[in-house]
Amino acid sequence: MKCRVCRGPAVIDVRRHNANFCKQHFLRLCRDQTAKTIKQFSMLSEGERILVAVSGGKDSLAIWDILIELGYEVDGFYLGLGIGDYSDTSAEYAQRFAKERGLTLHTKDLLRDHGFDVPNGSRAAKRAPCSACGLSKRHCFDEAARLGAYDALVTGHNLDDEAAVLMGNVLHWQTEYLGRQLPVLAAQHGFPRKVKPLVRLTERDTAAYCLLRGLDYLVDECPIAAGNKHLSYKAALNDIERDSPGAKHAFYFRFLDQAADRFATAQPEDGAEVVAPVSPCTNCGAPCSNEVCAFCSLTMRATEAVPIEMGATRRRKVSP
Amino acid sequence: MKCRVCRGPAVIDVRRHNANFCKQHFLRLCRDQTAKTIKQFSMLSEGERILVAVSGGKDSLAIWDILIELGYEVDGFYLGLGIGDYSDTSAEYAQRFAKERGLTLHTKDLLRDHGFDVPNGSRAAKRAPCSACGLSKRHCFDEAARLGAYDALVTGHNLDDEAAVLMGNVLHWQTEYLGRQLPVLAAQHGFPRKVKPLVRLTERDTAAYCLLRGLDYLVDECPIAAGNKHLSYKAALNDIERDSPGAKHAFYFRFLDQAADRFATAQPEDGAEVVAPVSPCTNCGAPCSNEVCAFCSLTMRATEAVPIEMGATRRRKVSP
Repeated sequence: MKCRVCRGPAVIDVRRHNANFCKQHFLRLCRDQTAKTIKQFSMLSEGERILVAVSGGKDSLAIWDILIELGYEVDGFYLGLGIGDYSDTSAEYAQRFAKERGLTLHTKDLLRDHGFDVPNGSRAAKRAPCSACGLSKRHCFDEAARLGAYDALVTGHNLDDEAAVLMGNVLHWQTEYLGRQLPVLAAQHGFPRKVKPLVRLTERDTAAYCLLRGLDYLVDECPIAAGNKHLSYKAALNDIERDSPGAKHAFYFRFLDQAADRFATAQPEDGAEVVAPVSPCTNCGAPCSNEVCAFCSLTMRATEAVPIEMGATRRRKVSP
Repeated sequence: MKCRVCRGPAVIDVRRHNANFCKQHFLRLCRDQTAKTIKQFSMLSEGERILVAVSGGKDSLAIWDILIELGYEVDGFYLGLGIGDYSDTSAEYAQRFAKERGLTLHTKDLLRDHGFDVPNGSRAAKRAPCSACGLSKRHCFDEAARLGAYDALVTGHNLDDEAAVLMGNVLHWQTEYLGRQLPVLAAQHGFPRKVKPLVRLTERDTAAYCLLRGLDYLVDECPIAAGNKHLSYKAALNDIERDSPGAKHAFYFRFLDQAADRFATAQPEDGAEVVAPVSPCTNCGAPCSNEVCAFCSLTMRATEAVPIEMGATRRRKVSP
């Protein structure tokens, strides 16, 4: 097994490229594919203030590392979700990465700063854990970018993630979501620009990248995500990819090329942007289309009566 | 396990309806679902001349039987594909069904009437067997309907078939195919109206229908279709359906409702139909957009030098 680039001994095969790579050229492939994505979708510009959402997993550490390697200045943001040991350990990986490189890592913690954690808060709010977690992350990431005056918020979504989300949206023909499932969303209404520079790399690629770069990351999957539909879509796509290497890439990139436009919200003929009425949340000031934003509503319900441990409960007013 | 309708002992569960049925009410369910589909999509009208493509498998015998039960007058058309015992046996099932009921079954045979069979012809023409088979069936079914002056051509495509085709089209974002993947295609340019009244029933439903109605059908799958991508899409959808009963139905019917229009070929603003230039094939007279239709091209290549057995070959001119 020889490296496609230098013909030296290869350490990894990449079936969808029908090629093998040595360590050096695999790492370069990952950086080149990321740089290509950033350029293709005009994700980032030199000198911009960039914030990356860091979980301590392979994807977020890989993208932070790659962006630094590519010469960007990037701060990190970590949100503690309160999912037991899983969250404690993920925080350590994120902090260690930042500390060893002298990078800035901002942190927030749902329980400390908002009075609930994902397992108990979602139960109290009668919301699926993954749904409450996703809403909390979106809100806190957006807020951190807005309050920190960052130009762009980077997330580590990879090709497997995006293809699985696309599969879910397609299986239900969620036309509104399909219209917005893009690797870059422009800043608007107080929300930061959001970019996903890893959409050309798979989970296996980012795991191999971390391994070969010597980056320690949290290998465990989230313990409460088991049974999540997203995971069954990933499994279905993995079966298809096994029979047809490159199927996931084609599914996602041909969607962007051939279909995404067809689901975009209709624009008026004069070219003016359709602006949904957006005003600050009366509680936290985040841009939203109701009086109180979805995260503050969740927080209110989640902190009404949260059983913390052994039946103890506490009430807590909403803090933004 | 009790029948949802009469509370008598049930013989089958239908998970996507979250219900069980006795024999009588399951058969009625199948007929009602088919009648609903025919009405919803204006597939057939009373007094029309209807032709059903019959393979001898569960789907085509079920739809022929259901249409007769619903009061339609329907003739059958069987095409011999020359796939060894599989084809011989399937012909017997089709003929027996027709004979026992005094129904008309027209037959054609690829080897007898066109000089090639699917296994050898596809090899000679350097075309995948399933592709050569599909093209041959479309052509011969269309021709039988046209020459027999039938108003509509019925096929036994079920929900599993249509969902799997949709999955293939979506995985590759075949926008042209997506624009045409409808349960009814209007007659145009000399092609008959084509309708798929079984799209609300699954493979399991049609198999159970045949079993409970005492219809003998060919159970074996086509021996040369193994490895066909279509089958891996079916497997992926079955995995998803297992986790989420009703997922296939939602995938297909929400596509029709929410997305199919977005892939339809653009129509001129004055509402006039876009007419691709269509003229008769100079060889067989079928409507086509080239001088010679795709089936006659296939026939020419397939009969150039077909090794029939033990290396014997023969040449044969194209016969329409």
